[in-house]
Amino acid sequence: MEKKEKLIIAGALIAAALAGVLHYAHSNAVLAFVITAAALATLAMVVGDATEQLGKRLGPGATGILQSALGNLPELFVCIFALRAGLAQVVQAALIGSILGNSLLVFGLALFLGGLKNGRQVFHSGPPKMIVTLMILAFAALAVPTLTHMLHTQAEGHLNSLNIFVAIILLVLFAASTYFFLKGDKAIVAPHEEEKTTAAWPLPTTLIILGGAGVGAAFVSDWFVEALQPAMKSLGINQTFAGLVIVAIAGNAIENLVGIQLAVRNQSDYAVSVILNSSLQIALGLFPLLVLLSYFLGGAILSFVLAPMLVVSLALAVIVSAFIVFDGESIWMEGLALIGLYCLIAAAFWWG
Amino acid sequence: MEKKEKLIIAGALIAAALAGVLHYAHSNAVLAFVITAAALATLAMVVGDATEQLGKRLGPGATGILQSALGNLPELFVCIFALRAGLAQVVQAALIGSILGNSLLVFGLALFLGGLKNGRQVFHSGPPKMIVTLMILAFAALAVPTLTHMLHTQAEGHLNSLNIFVAIILLVLFAASTYFFLKGDKAIVAPHEEEKTTAAWPLPTTLIILGGAGVGAAFVSDWFVEALQPAMKSLGINQTFAGLVIVAIAGNAIENLVGIQLAVRNQSDYAVSVILNSSLQIALGLFPLLVLLSYFLGGAILSFVLAPMLVVSLALAVIVSAFIVFDGESIWMEGLALIGLYCLIAAAFWWG
Amino acid sequence: MEKKEKLIIAGALIAAALAGVLHYAHSNAVLAFVITAAALATLAMVVGDATEQLGKRLGPGATGILQSALGNLPELFVCIFALRAGLAQVVQAALIGSILGNSLLVFGLALFLGGLKNGRQVFHSGPPKMIVTLMILAFAALAVPTLTHMLHTQAEGHLNSLNIFVAIILLVLFAASTYFFLKGDKAIVAPHEEEKTTAAWPLPTTLIILGGAGVGAAFVSDWFVEALQPAMKSLGINQTFAGLVIVAIAGNAIENLVGIQLAVRNQSDYAVSVILNSSLQIALGLFPLLVLLSYFLGGAILSFVLAPMLVVSLALAVIVSAFIVFDGESIWMEGLALIGLYCLIAAAFWWG
Repeated sequence: MEKKEKLIIAGALIAAALAGVLHYAHSNAVLAFVITAAALATLAMVVGDATEQLGKRLGPGATGILQSALGNLPELFVCIFALRAGLAQVVQAALIGSILGNSLLVFGLALFLGGLKNGRQVFHSGPPKMIVTLMILAFAALAVPTLTHMLHTQAEGHLNSLNIFVAIILLVLFAASTYFFLKGDKAIVAPHEEEKTTAAWPLPTTLIILGGAGVGAAFVSDWFVEALQPAMKSLGINQTFAGLVIVAIAGNAIENLVGIQLAVRNQSDYAVSVILNSSLQIALGLFPLLVLLSYFLGGAILSFVLAPMLVVSLALAVIVSAFIVFDGESIWMEGLALIGLYCLIAAAFWWG
Repeated sequence: MEKKEKLIIAGALIAAALAGVLHYAHSNAVLAFVITAAALATLAMVVGDATEQLGKRLGPGATGILQSALGNLPELFVCIFALRAGLAQVVQAALIGSILGNSLLVFGLALFLGGLKNGRQVFHSGPPKMIVTLMILAFAALAVPTLTHMLHTQAEGHLNSLNIFVAIILLVLFAASTYFFLKGDKAIVAPHEEEKTTAAWPLPTTLIILGGAGVGAAFVSDWFVEALQPAMKSLGINQTFAGLVIVAIAGNAIENLVGIQLAVRNQSDYAVSVILNSSLQIALGLFPLLVLLSYFLGGAILSFVLAPMLVVSLALAVIVSAFIVFDGESIWMEGLALIGLYCLIAAAFWWG
Repeated sequence: MEKKEKLIIAGALIAAALAGVLHYAHSNAVLAFVITAAALATLAMVVGDATEQLGKRLGPGATGILQSALGNLPELFVCIFALRAGLAQVVQAALIGSILGNSLLVFGLALFLGGLKNGRQVFHSGPPKMIVTLMILAFAALAVPTLTHMLHTQAEGHLNSLNIFVAIILLVLFAASTYFFLKGDKAIVAPHEEEKTTAAWPLPTTLIILGGAGVGAAFVSDWFVEALQPAMKSLGINQTFAGLVIVAIAGNAIENLVGIQLAVRNQSDYAVSVILNSSLQIALGLFPLLVLLSYFLGGAILSFVLAPMLVVSLALAVIVSAFIVFDGESIWMEGLALIGLYCLIAAAFWWG
């Protein structure tokens, strides 16, 4: 195990322990929220590292499936606890906020910092275009229930059936795209990072860490959701903004640093694939899974019918990022404009 | 005359005769509807073959004009009879449904089956991009009256004038694009299939078959429209869904098989041109022609003002297919996603 | 000074004098309006020529900044006087109308006439794609306040704050893009026309002409705005249409001829850059500047919240022009379709 990995595990342990203490001591809500968020972010990293280690024993195909299944585990826990607490609106906002955060803020930072460091950056290969095309298709599918509701079509009275049908179609596409990216044309699929393939943790260690981090993430997610409402109240932040910006950024913070680092290192194609693929997994996988699960959880029902402004923001983000990818080359100015657009959309939700 | 062509003519004759018997015998509505739909589809094929034969005597330019004029003849008849029966809503849905069917379902099947057979498919040349760009322009023009109506602008009180103005502009663009594809830059225009240019029917036979199929299509269209309403009622299908999915697929079924076959044979460029050009002809030609005709037919007036959900579905279909074409390469996964989107849109209209 | 330049200055002087006489003589409103519009257009050309001459003394970087700052000076004056006269609706329509006019009518004419003259035109280089990508981002930013208002989000009660925030973000992006186009990668930035760099006016002449034309433009703008309302009333034209079509075309007429001339001379890349950059400057610079200024002018407040139909028209124009640029090649047919779309949008506002 590398020193960096050990540090992350230690950090996650300390943060999780602190979060637990603050939770049971009913301490200051904002402090508890910040520490729990930090614990969640570091646990997400540990789950990511352990998944990768496990994958190495099982071959590259299995790694992909494991990463698809476990990569969003902490976010999944947070959303489940939030749904059980009746916070369907926060969950919707957090899911859309994760996509907006990836497609505008993180993508913008990657282009801006990458462009300042490396000048004009060129996308050579197919994967970014492919991902962005699938993202537009996913958006279109995701938008159908909200449009049905907004435009008061007759299907409005059958939204439950429509939700379930949409969820099943999206999960079929998720399965197909996971299969595609595993078995698909080598020229299209993004190359895996080569450097880390040598060192592997012992199998028992890997399993213990993965299990421990998973259980830990479940507990911390629960505390995070419980700390969310009082913290937001004492900061004067509304539910939608909390989900859209704060939960979304807390849930993806460290994962996103990877994409930005790749861009600064001038690996634009790979950076764009990592960043936008993360959006795609939420749209095709996490969101429909949670919609189906919500019918069994006994809390709030999660619907694909979103606040119109969320759908419109998503449309802007998807179209804008698609044009930037199809452009074939990027400049820091485009990154800055993406960041600006993210700030404007966030501002529009500030007065929720 | 080839054996296949003779078989089609025989099939059309038998189906049309059967449809006539069922019509005048007032038989079971669903059975009458299915047989009449089959008769219409085979007659459409006969009209297509006869038009092509006639064109060969007149040169390639005239073939194009004839195909533009006669290619949608059976659909034109169905729409005219439906308007006379007061079914303006069905006609609107059928026209938009034909575009959705081409741009999502048929295009999706072509990419999916072509991709499974041939792996990644690449679009080399200009025609698909050009057609898809014109389709976006056609959509924008088509959307103006509905937007005017939805957004309650002052022009709402002058929709008849706006409809006629839009129809004239679209028909001018249709004439210009027909001229362009006939006389235009050889590098842009899709090459015609070479194989069939040798054999030609005798001229009198061609004219008799063309005339007979045309008259037959007119009668069968009338029966089709009359069978439509009772059949839909006994199947529990609403008018919009009937037009959008059933009439649209029945009207284009065989024509569409050609595009899919081309994709499976790995002629992606040509397949995409055929499939998307069909959408373009409906948007620029058939729809505005019917709007103008409706003022003289004495039935329902056909308006460009569509149900908002139809316009939004059209927007999604046009944007999505544009990005797939601009992508420059296609994979079976994109085809599957298009089919999924078609199913979702159809589902949204199921509870009409 | 060249003969052509002298003629323009003489023409501007005569038109401005005539406009003054008609203004103070309270003559026929339509005649006064037409002459004042002509005076404004020629003064705009003089300001443009003088700015260019001044720039030559200061180097290419300063020219760009001067052109950004002074290029829209007459339009700025017209908008300021119109706001002081309480005509916020006309100003909004004129700003959006300038963008629509550039992106649809002028771009369409350039592609149509250029295509008829030169056949298929190809865009080789990056600038048109970059400008069109930034334009989509600018549209997205511009649309947020209107969407907030249309969709009745909670931010509706805080539109002043949102307007000011949007204006600041857009002006930051304007400053960044001006910096980028001045200092940026040479391969991306459009080359400056070489031919005119030899001859330069004497510095005092330049300053006197620039000052005189600026002051003249201020006066003529005032008369133009005063003549606008009675002229439109006697012609039966509503405020929105007047701003969207008449003020927008009058304000950009001569400037736009340059772009069309370049296209006819087969300099497609440069033509597209000039035409679309003009739209970008209005969206990122002139509009937010006027919004901020309107809080100090004591007249009507200019808001980013537009009539929904204006935003939708803008969306259609931006998407359509983006696809045409990304297409990489253009044909006269696409130009014709753009002109047709412009006519349809104008028609939708005719019955205001």
